[in-house]
Amino acid sequence: MIIDCHGHYTTAPKALEEWRNRQISGLKDRSLAPRAAELVISDDALRESVEANQLAKMVERGCDLTIFSPRASFMAHHIGDFETSATWSAICNELCHRVSCLFPDHFIGAAMLPQSPGVDPKTCVPELERCVREYGFVAINLNPDPSGGHWREPPLTDRHWYPIYEKMVEYDIPAMIHVSTSCNACFHTTGAHYINADTTAFMQLIQGDLFKDFPTLRFVIPHGGGAAPYHWGRYRGLAQELKKPLLKDHLLGNVFFDTCVYHQPGIDLLTRVIPIDNVLFASEMIGAVRGIDPETGFHFDDTRRYIEAAALSAADRKKIYEGNARRVYPRLDAALKAKGR
Amino acid sequence: MIIDCHGHYTTAPKALEEWRNRQISGLKDRSLAPRAAELVISDDALRESVEANQLAKMVERGCDLTIFSPRASFMAHHIGDFETSATWSAICNELCHRVSCLFPDHFIGAAMLPQSPGVDPKTCVPELERCVREYGFVAINLNPDPSGGHWREPPLTDRHWYPIYEKMVEYDIPAMIHVSTSCNACFHTTGAHYINADTTAFMQLIQGDLFKDFPTLRFVIPHGGGAAPYHWGRYRGLAQELKKPLLKDHLLGNVFFDTCVYHQPGIDLLTRVIPIDNVLFASEMIGAVRGIDPETGFHFDDTRRYIEAAALSAADRKKIYEGNARRVYPRLDAALKAKGR
Repeated sequence: MIIDCHGHYTTAPKALEEWRNRQISGLKDRSLAPRAAELVISDDALRESVEANQLAKMVERGCDLTIFSPRASFMAHHIGDFETSATWSAICNELCHRVSCLFPDHFIGAAMLPQSPGVDPKTCVPELERCVREYGFVAINLNPDPSGGHWREPPLTDRHWYPIYEKMVEYDIPAMIHVSTSCNACFHTTGAHYINADTTAFMQLIQGDLFKDFPTLRFVIPHGGGAAPYHWGRYRGLAQELKKPLLKDHLLGNVFFDTCVYHQPGIDLLTRVIPIDNVLFASEMIGAVRGIDPETGFHFDDTRRYIEAAALSAADRKKIYEGNARRVYPRLDAALKAKGR
Repeated sequence: MIIDCHGHYTTAPKALEEWRNRQISGLKDRSLAPRAAELVISDDALRESVEANQLAKMVERGCDLTIFSPRASFMAHHIGDFETSATWSAICNELCHRVSCLFPDHFIGAAMLPQSPGVDPKTCVPELERCVREYGFVAINLNPDPSGGHWREPPLTDRHWYPIYEKMVEYDIPAMIHVSTSCNACFHTTGAHYINADTTAFMQLIQGDLFKDFPTLRFVIPHGGGAAPYHWGRYRGLAQELKKPLLKDHLLGNVFFDTCVYHQPGIDLLTRVIPIDNVLFASEMIGAVRGIDPETGFHFDDTRRYIEAAALSAADRKKIYEGNARRVYPRLDAALKAKGR
């Protein structure tokens, strides 16, 4: 079985974006603000948006199940206030839930949170609870920079974030550390801000001792861990200078990397440097890089090909495809087992 | 011959830091501000600070010459105003010049610039000119984020930076893109801010068309290019989506990567992915990561060992060690040739 732990609903019907644009207009002129109920998307429209896109590619590439969350770049937590984010995340999470009900064998949800810059993260707990309890979501996406490229919240190791971690531990769900769109002209969203955030989060975790307070807390760092595996020697050395334990003891019981690295040498490095138990299959399909690689003739984000071609044993490949995801996302494992999978 | 294109004067005598601390105190209380002339460091003190450190390690590791610039994390362009930075960079550049006069076979200078947040970069031109003309410096370090982790200047492709590029072209000198200390708690200086800046700069260059305006402008992206080589597929794909030429045509005539990657798998990836003509030997010794790697028994930053162990031909290794640096830093090449080297 192949589980893709990183998929976003990037292909939602146009009505969603139109509603969001009206919501944004409503921030300046309240008379333009739409009610949530004004967004109507039929099951057929949802089905179509996924069948021709994510699902078609999953079948083509042999991927069985995707952990499916709202479009990351559209979270845009910097827009408006908590109420804005609360309404918007409720809508986006519900759509992912509906997709998972329409295609229960192929999609299972992960929640975006109603984060807002400068707002206490505990305000995100009700939406998190709703998504886990009512929708059966198995994870959350946590944005370490709701400002969208200005980085004004404290590091992830700060007590600021603890209300979310407490709930994650209670529900035994991991968080993927995932920023949203950049509104800082220095940072291209998917080419700089995403990768920088991954690198930044990893270094914050090195500096702190978060997993002493939360021994069972688990984070997935997407996009192959940003720059961390490529600079693994630097990070081992910095941890040593900071008098931290070896990275494998300090972080690798709690921190995992996905395989959203879009060329063979990158995947080869990832699987050479990072213990296989910490690598989870993912493609972020359909996401940041949608084209066909002229060097291979296949899509850049067809990451299964790189895993197949990497020097891995069958047992290690199975861990990357399935075993590690079942361990890191226990609610996913339980949901699969309940269906005899 | 082995040229290390990335070394900072991280071991300057304590008097330098004490002077800087007084300068910073003087920003609040002008009566505490020191005159530049109050900083007195003897040749013996300079000699000692280098002989026991950088030079000893260069001899030990077989490195002949280091392109030597002021300590990057101490540039701290966010402190004070232009005058603060102007005085400070003049002092730091002069010290590097004096080191290069004391050890002319082993060090040649690269300038820090008197950048200051929100100040027109053309104010940096006089110091740049002085360093090239009077000191014989062969390069500059350009800080894309003088705010120190808040990223408030425009991208490197913006006309904002053109006065510096015009001088670089006139003098035929490259710039290493190098940030300074982070004053944003989210970003560890050497573990996040440095690497993020490398990645960010590279993506800015993909987005723009800077080298159409400056076909001979050259940038060295340090720390192995940040995350760029590891995510080379992502960057090739993003360039394609942005309708840019292939990266090799779009950037690789002008953009180079150093080898400050502190483990074998990272160097193996770098030399596998990036054309050898674009890779320049460097160690950033004595810099960010000073310890001994318990996995190898050698210093993390002893990058020559990784280059020696990489699957490279003798001709390629020679390019990385010497040939590429002579090409990218023509004033270095001229200085060496003038000495028959």
